[in-house]
Amino acid sequence: MSMSEAKKKTGGLAGVVAGESAICTCGLGNGLNYYGYAIEDLANHAEFEEIAFLLQYAQLPNSKELEEYKNKIIAQRELSENLKTILKAIPKETHPMNLMQTAVAALGALEAEKEDFSNQDEKIIRLLGILPSVLCYWHHFVHFGKEIDFNSNQKSIAGYFLEKLQEQDPKEDFIKAMQCSLILYAEHEFNASTFTARTCASTKSDIFSAVAAAIGALRGPLHGGANEAAMGLIESFSSVEEAIEGVNRKLENKELLMGFGHRVYGLGGDPRNALIKVWSKHLGGETLIFKVSEAIENLMKEKKPNLPPNADFYSASAYHFMGIPTAYFTPIFIMSRVSGWCAHIKEQRANNKLIRPSSEYIGPSPRKFIKIQDR
Amino acid sequence: MSMSEAKKKTGGLAGVVAGESAICTCGLGNGLNYYGYAIEDLANHAEFEEIAFLLQYAQLPNSKELEEYKNKIIAQRELSENLKTILKAIPKETHPMNLMQTAVAALGALEAEKEDFSNQDEKIIRLLGILPSVLCYWHHFVHFGKEIDFNSNQKSIAGYFLEKLQEQDPKEDFIKAMQCSLILYAEHEFNASTFTARTCASTKSDIFSAVAAAIGALRGPLHGGANEAAMGLIESFSSVEEAIEGVNRKLENKELLMGFGHRVYGLGGDPRNALIKVWSKHLGGETLIFKVSEAIENLMKEKKPNLPPNADFYSASAYHFMGIPTAYFTPIFIMSRVSGWCAHIKEQRANNKLIRPSSEYIGPSPRKFIKIQDR
Repeated sequence: MSMSEAKKKTGGLAGVVAGESAICTCGLGNGLNYYGYAIEDLANHAEFEEIAFLLQYAQLPNSKELEEYKNKIIAQRELSENLKTILKAIPKETHPMNLMQTAVAALGALEAEKEDFSNQDEKIIRLLGILPSVLCYWHHFVHFGKEIDFNSNQKSIAGYFLEKLQEQDPKEDFIKAMQCSLILYAEHEFNASTFTARTCASTKSDIFSAVAAAIGALRGPLHGGANEAAMGLIESFSSVEEAIEGVNRKLENKELLMGFGHRVYGLGGDPRNALIKVWSKHLGGETLIFKVSEAIENLMKEKKPNLPPNADFYSASAYHFMGIPTAYFTPIFIMSRVSGWCAHIKEQRANNKLIRPSSEYIGPSPRKFIKIQDR
Repeated sequence: MSMSEAKKKTGGLAGVVAGESAICTCGLGNGLNYYGYAIEDLANHAEFEEIAFLLQYAQLPNSKELEEYKNKIIAQRELSENLKTILKAIPKETHPMNLMQTAVAALGALEAEKEDFSNQDEKIIRLLGILPSVLCYWHHFVHFGKEIDFNSNQKSIAGYFLEKLQEQDPKEDFIKAMQCSLILYAEHEFNASTFTARTCASTKSDIFSAVAAAIGALRGPLHGGANEAAMGLIESFSSVEEAIEGVNRKLENKELLMGFGHRVYGLGGDPRNALIKVWSKHLGGETLIFKVSEAIENLMKEKKPNLPPNADFYSASAYHFMGIPTAYFTPIFIMSRVSGWCAHIKEQRANNKLIRPSSEYIGPSPRKFIKIQDR
């Protein structure tokens, strides 16, 4: 391998092994697995809390364990008064991802993890329980001046979030679609936000610092923000014909289309796409949004077969059909991926080595310093 | 190279080139340079704002540019009312690094960077100006119930921070020692927090999200927290003899000593150590703290010549002699390193590729899913 090939290979660390992990495989030829279980089985036959448990403890729960786990999460839905004060100080114009990062950083300040990490599992459950409350409390306060409570008959994170966001009993189909999307988004190996969380944890920092860091990475349109960008694209067309014309023009201009392609999957594509597409079709198959989505997918298949749709593309329309504002798509991603981030933080801590790469220096040669009066 | 060697080599990405950078060299044989200028020249003949300018614009300022730059930073010292509300909700028991992460995340929420990053330089100056105010405002509020103002005759970040923290005119020597330490801590290539900031920025996230992420990484005792840990060690001894006995015991027990050793420097050691030691000696050479520090340094030189002292070791005592509480050592590190982080964020953005490595899978083979009722 020549130097330039070596350099090319490590650009963005693509294909570089940055550590060992037992949590997830993707792009390895046997699809996407969490601890060896195929994503198709998990998405079709489990609920999100089973997957959160799997990621936290490396095994699936039985019925009794699942019920206990869900009750522990339910008990962590309340916000403290100080956290409410902080959320109320964040205005409605704020990007909700900055709101979420502020909230998790504030949890680190208000409800610190122990320095020896002996309560890390409690803190993971706290995060699973409180994140939907954070977003919904802030939403109702900044838009309607209303302070919601956190009582609910909904036992699942999916159902609780939908109920609190929309202040009505969620449809069963919406809960199921949300379960599916939370499962699909829960974990994905060394993606940028997870790798951020691990790098942060490798300094022996606390779990809230690391999760807040991961949220910062997820915010970007090249990562979690992709589902919002996909929705923006889909919504920008008022007919199938317009969509085809518009996407063709974008392809001619070599514009990047969010929701297509993924670094770790080859031509077989992202296995999550088919799973969430089923729900998008079920919830909105007759709508223009779905028809436009499918037209874009088919056009891309023809024109860019090497860029198959990823999990973000039909997640966008599925969320839309549930009545969720586009700005909250990526915060929902947090509610799910926090389970994967925390699994990686635990794994990093269990066999820690500081993550500290090097750079290839391309700057000026050593040079003489000239004092300011002589510059 | 065998597989196990290859694996060992990439543990924590040690020695792995994760990208190109023109900003800094360290451990390359010609010492620590920022944009080609030797750290010795910078620390002895410049003030911190010259270095912040250098890192932000890739060149040293002339007198006029420096004055304009400092005035811009001075104009960014004020906190908004919403940020004050947030800081007041963080109790005094909070680890100050969690406070600082919350504040920077909140800046992202309250004073968002433009999505096209066209005002990134303004935001960097905002961070340089506001960070000392954040810590000092919170400090006086939570400890004394007092809300400080941000007026000052001090033109430098070093002088302003010392004045606001201690509410008195700082001694000239203290300002100079603080300038030196801020310069030494400003930048250090792909360290864990900087790499965190770059990974975050590589998703096209905003600058506040990335800096908040970096703070999360700096918090850990294997990174920024090392100067606090060094102080804890030094302070734990009430005589030189006790220190020698205590450190010998720690070495026998194979305990990690914070303030010694650094991944990127060889036996020549960390060039920053000698520079800050001069100031530590100048400020407190006759004190027990300094004598204990020097005794530990000499003992380590003899017993662990491969672990020379790093920048953190004498920074700790230098800060102590200035009357700075130990818990604020790492937040001061933020006030300095934010200049390096932001330089790297700008550089990452200018030639971006998503940072997304892979993991080596060591988990269970694909396995059959069993539905919950059958578990």
